[in-house]
Amino acid sequence: MEHRYLENIPLTEAKALFEAHLKRAGFAPKTETVAVQAACGRRLKRAVYAHICAPHYNASAMDGVAVKASVTFGASEHTPVTLTPGDYTVVDTGDPLPAGADAVIMVEDLIDAADGCFQILAAVHPWQNVRQVGEDLCMGDMIAPSGTVLTPALCGALLAGGVTGAEVFRKPLVGVIPTGDEIVAPTADPKPGDIIEFNSTVFRGMLEGWGAEVEVFPITPDKKDRIRAAVEAALSRCDIVLVSAGSSAGRDDYTSDIISSLGRVLVHGIAIKPGKPAVLGEAGGKPIVGLPGYPVSAIVVMDEIVRDLVYAAQGAAAPARETVEGTLAKKLVSSLKYQEYVRVSLGKIGGRWSVSPLPRGAGVISSFTKADGILVIDQNTEGIEAGKTVTVRLLRPLRELEQTLIVAGSHDPLIDEVTDLLRQGGASFRVSSTHVGSMGAIRAVQSGLCHIGGIHLLDTETGEYNKSYVQKYFPNGGAGIMKGVGRVQGLMVRKGNPCGIRCFADVARVRYVNRQRGAGTRILCDYLLEQNGLSPEQIDGYENEEFTHTAVAALIAAGNADTGLGIYSAAKIYDLDYIPICTEVYDFLVDEQYRDDPMVQAFFAVLRSDACRERLRAMGGYLMEE
Amino acid sequence: MEHRYLENIPLTEAKALFEAHLKRAGFAPKTETVAVQAACGRRLKRAVYAHICAPHYNASAMDGVAVKASVTFGASEHTPVTLTPGDYTVVDTGDPLPAGADAVIMVEDLIDAADGCFQILAAVHPWQNVRQVGEDLCMGDMIAPSGTVLTPALCGALLAGGVTGAEVFRKPLVGVIPTGDEIVAPTADPKPGDIIEFNSTVFRGMLEGWGAEVEVFPITPDKKDRIRAAVEAALSRCDIVLVSAGSSAGRDDYTSDIISSLGRVLVHGIAIKPGKPAVLGEAGGKPIVGLPGYPVSAIVVMDEIVRDLVYAAQGAAAPARETVEGTLAKKLVSSLKYQEYVRVSLGKIGGRWSVSPLPRGAGVISSFTKADGILVIDQNTEGIEAGKTVTVRLLRPLRELEQTLIVAGSHDPLIDEVTDLLRQGGASFRVSSTHVGSMGAIRAVQSGLCHIGGIHLLDTETGEYNKSYVQKYFPNGGAGIMKGVGRVQGLMVRKGNPCGIRCFADVARVRYVNRQRGAGTRILCDYLLEQNGLSPEQIDGYENEEFTHTAVAALIAAGNADTGLGIYSAAKIYDLDYIPICTEVYDFLVDEQYRDDPMVQAFFAVLRSDACRERLRAMGGYLMEE
Repeated sequence: MEHRYLENIPLTEAKALFEAHLKRAGFAPKTETVAVQAACGRRLKRAVYAHICAPHYNASAMDGVAVKASVTFGASEHTPVTLTPGDYTVVDTGDPLPAGADAVIMVEDLIDAADGCFQILAAVHPWQNVRQVGEDLCMGDMIAPSGTVLTPALCGALLAGGVTGAEVFRKPLVGVIPTGDEIVAPTADPKPGDIIEFNSTVFRGMLEGWGAEVEVFPITPDKKDRIRAAVEAALSRCDIVLVSAGSSAGRDDYTSDIISSLGRVLVHGIAIKPGKPAVLGEAGGKPIVGLPGYPVSAIVVMDEIVRDLVYAAQGAAAPARETVEGTLAKKLVSSLKYQEYVRVSLGKIGGRWSVSPLPRGAGVISSFTKADGILVIDQNTEGIEAGKTVTVRLLRPLRELEQTLIVAGSHDPLIDEVTDLLRQGGASFRVSSTHVGSMGAIRAVQSGLCHIGGIHLLDTETGEYNKSYVQKYFPNGGAGIMKGVGRVQGLMVRKGNPCGIRCFADVARVRYVNRQRGAGTRILCDYLLEQNGLSPEQIDGYENEEFTHTAVAALIAAGNADTGLGIYSAAKIYDLDYIPICTEVYDFLVDEQYRDDPMVQAFFAVLRSDACRERLRAMGGYLMEE
Repeated sequence: MEHRYLENIPLTEAKALFEAHLKRAGFAPKTETVAVQAACGRRLKRAVYAHICAPHYNASAMDGVAVKASVTFGASEHTPVTLTPGDYTVVDTGDPLPAGADAVIMVEDLIDAADGCFQILAAVHPWQNVRQVGEDLCMGDMIAPSGTVLTPALCGALLAGGVTGAEVFRKPLVGVIPTGDEIVAPTADPKPGDIIEFNSTVFRGMLEGWGAEVEVFPITPDKKDRIRAAVEAALSRCDIVLVSAGSSAGRDDYTSDIISSLGRVLVHGIAIKPGKPAVLGEAGGKPIVGLPGYPVSAIVVMDEIVRDLVYAAQGAAAPARETVEGTLAKKLVSSLKYQEYVRVSLGKIGGRWSVSPLPRGAGVISSFTKADGILVIDQNTEGIEAGKTVTVRLLRPLRELEQTLIVAGSHDPLIDEVTDLLRQGGASFRVSSTHVGSMGAIRAVQSGLCHIGGIHLLDTETGEYNKSYVQKYFPNGGAGIMKGVGRVQGLMVRKGNPCGIRCFADVARVRYVNRQRGAGTRILCDYLLEQNGLSPEQIDGYENEEFTHTAVAALIAAGNADTGLGIYSAAKIYDLDYIPICTEVYDFLVDEQYRDDPMVQAFFAVLRSDACRERLRAMGGYLMEE
């Protein structure tokens, strides 16, 4: 087994090398002339001047009669002037003024007289109620300079100025080639080993957002000649070619070799994390980028490298990224080997932004869907201390982030269901929920990092839930409990209970899957172990930590573990058998200063609604007061 | 001639009437199921849950060999463990773990030994280098709640979770029917009386920006039965119908009658300006809106009424508008009869936003292309004093407005040409230029409303330009002159000089078109009148004021006036004859604190460039130092 090594070129250096080479190779924006009716959103290659005036003739600005102003001079309430049919022409708004006329009298100001005559009680001055030639636009005036993105109103102005076509930058066509033997088209029913190909859908969305057109090529297996043929086909008609997966230096990684054989590889391996195994190359004057197969790595390379390419192909610099400054909630360690991209969630609590890092796994697309922003840690930084002010690139509009109810704490799907009901009810705010466990909820409320925390904390002395914890951690008040739900906790086991588990003591003889430290369910586990005279060392898998009930259920269903503690609804989803152990109280801890916040109030109103009860009943395992 | 009157219903009341009626009539969002690959940007009707786990099998996270972790226990530098071919299976990243394996050893950590054996110097623990089932997403977890707009990453997550189709709100199809006898399709060569139909292009751009699909119907003449047939055709397949023009109460205004005959008119006439003559109606459960023919009026009605309809049809509230607070630069008077929409330009000078009203004509589409924002004056307000803080709805992104070089002052097309050259050179900032005359430039610099002012001010005592004005208005400094260009001023006359104008004194016997008060060219005119012993009262058209050289040229070319004072390049565009009168100095007044501003420096660098000289030479009438 061979193993080649990648380069580790700093990002700015890699980009400079790539850009300079592409320029020499002739990569440049293309233009086309499009009908102005279809040009909205496009960018002008060159300045546009009005071909004609608008209006291009003297037009009546009112419904009424056109006259020569001089015939009306002297008219007043005391000295009305009578217009005979020869003095006027009836005109509607927009009609051209007849020869000799230079003013319009509004229909409201005409007093009917006999024989088609009108009386008027006021004079009009020359050009009154007339839209003179060029009132809006004058022939020869520049309507928009080079590089302007055409808005709806600008398209209107171009047409008004007699401009019917505009030379605009072409939308580059980007070819995306998904590769890999195991890759299959999206399906609800993949076989083991099948990897669902979703990266091209992510890329399409990003590319179209940057103004490109996209052609996704068929999935190509890991055969060098097949991939090479696909790259050649893409080069023949696309402006930029992206090869998805196969960009590293493993056995089946052909992208680099293929680009070398067709043109030139400039960079293979960038000092960024995730995203290192990227290939930057060129053939026939067109950029070819080899993207890593892991979605998060690929998204970083797309955003740092391909975004600039797509804008450059449209003759533009990529727009500046929207950022926000916030306080880092948790220390971050980073390697001097890479520039790191950390997905973070943002919370605006009490007027300041707090920045909480999310898990860093490169394969976890869901970390991008949950992230509010990206914190970029410079390559020359070993880490950032908690409490430092950091700048975060936004992944959502600031306004949306500002209207977010932040729920932290123990995982329970009911929070998602309440969120969904709020959205269905037209709530104008978002709910951000993170699974940090019950103790995490207490710390988050203490630190002002959330509005609401979900807790189910057993006091092992009294057997009571939650109250004593709040007394202990908020001795001077500052947070209170809002009643949540009762729920059953129990052991999940595979269908038919193959290991014959009857009670909690049985976990000592099978493979267990645990919850993370600080989770209420972990505290329950430790309590039950103690009650049963067991120590953690006796439990195979005690150190296997998961963050949610469904993650525990998924591992049991897959056979990675035999049992684990969790709520009934998770077992039900995975068709597992369930051995109920106890009933517990899942409550909400609310920071006192947010108790009257309309978002918090809306949350609890929905929690107590009939619609919510119905959903919890359908999920099963909840106890609700009637 | 009959004249009917419109209602004047306050906007909020009109909208409430319309919305309540539409609800009763069954106007509601529709949904459809689309492939997730094509769903980016669409809004979810209902929550989406993962159908499968991601990964849905235990997958190798590395290239290497899959093993049962227990066979590696005890391995260290001093006690290497040897793996025989039966102990391991070669796996690539993404491969499923073979039965019995629960860990992966990276290829880098394998030491080749004989007979297909490997040595390892460290143990792996169970599930090390394995992406366990559900690491990314767990079956049954909610991926996104109702109402979520699908981002590229969310589409990826849906596919990863085995979701192939999503129920999203349908993009409403909006039918646009342009009407009018004089209306013609866009052309560079309209006949007198032809009105170029550009409103439907403006509407299309706005509607598509709000998420609608648009069908523009053929232009329909002002025949009641023809328009009625078009509305019926549109109702048969569109979700919302817009009738452009004919919404008022004049002779050829049929929209209201047609809607009445097909369904019901709720409102005819809204207390907004511009935009009053709008019709809000319904037929067959679908909204029909009659839009005014004047583009600015129509845009206001689109933005206040139709925008909400289009979002409602997608099950959403229209997003909040971006606004900024600024100081009103000039007093605004408003009528108690209407809520007024004033187009304004915004300038950020010295950290604060100043708000300058633009002309209010309803027919002037260019006022929308130049506007940076809209100031809405409440119906119950008689006006707003200069210096008051006002809230402005933005028409451009704030970031773009913040990077704007503001040039105010005397009109000269060279400012547009410099702007274009800056854009072609890749300048990252915008140039906003307003024609307020030379004296306007001095006031704007004094008030901190612009970075640069264009001036050509003749000192009638000394015959010198600009210097004495700066000494007078900036006695304590604060602004300096940057050298501009010399340019010829002269009288423009129609080709062949039909009125036989030879010198400035001849303006007394023809129809003159003047420039606005404060313009340098107006001051020159007054000086020349005095020199020639003429008084303003002797000049026919002295009170006809235009704001630009091209506007003066356009009126002379159209025959609205016989002569006017202006620069050579304007005469050339309109193929006019030109009688040079004098040479003047067009300079730039620069606020001292912005002299080193990079935008200001870039402006003058381009002004002095060869490319700029070449453009001025081609325009003609400029004198440049070599």
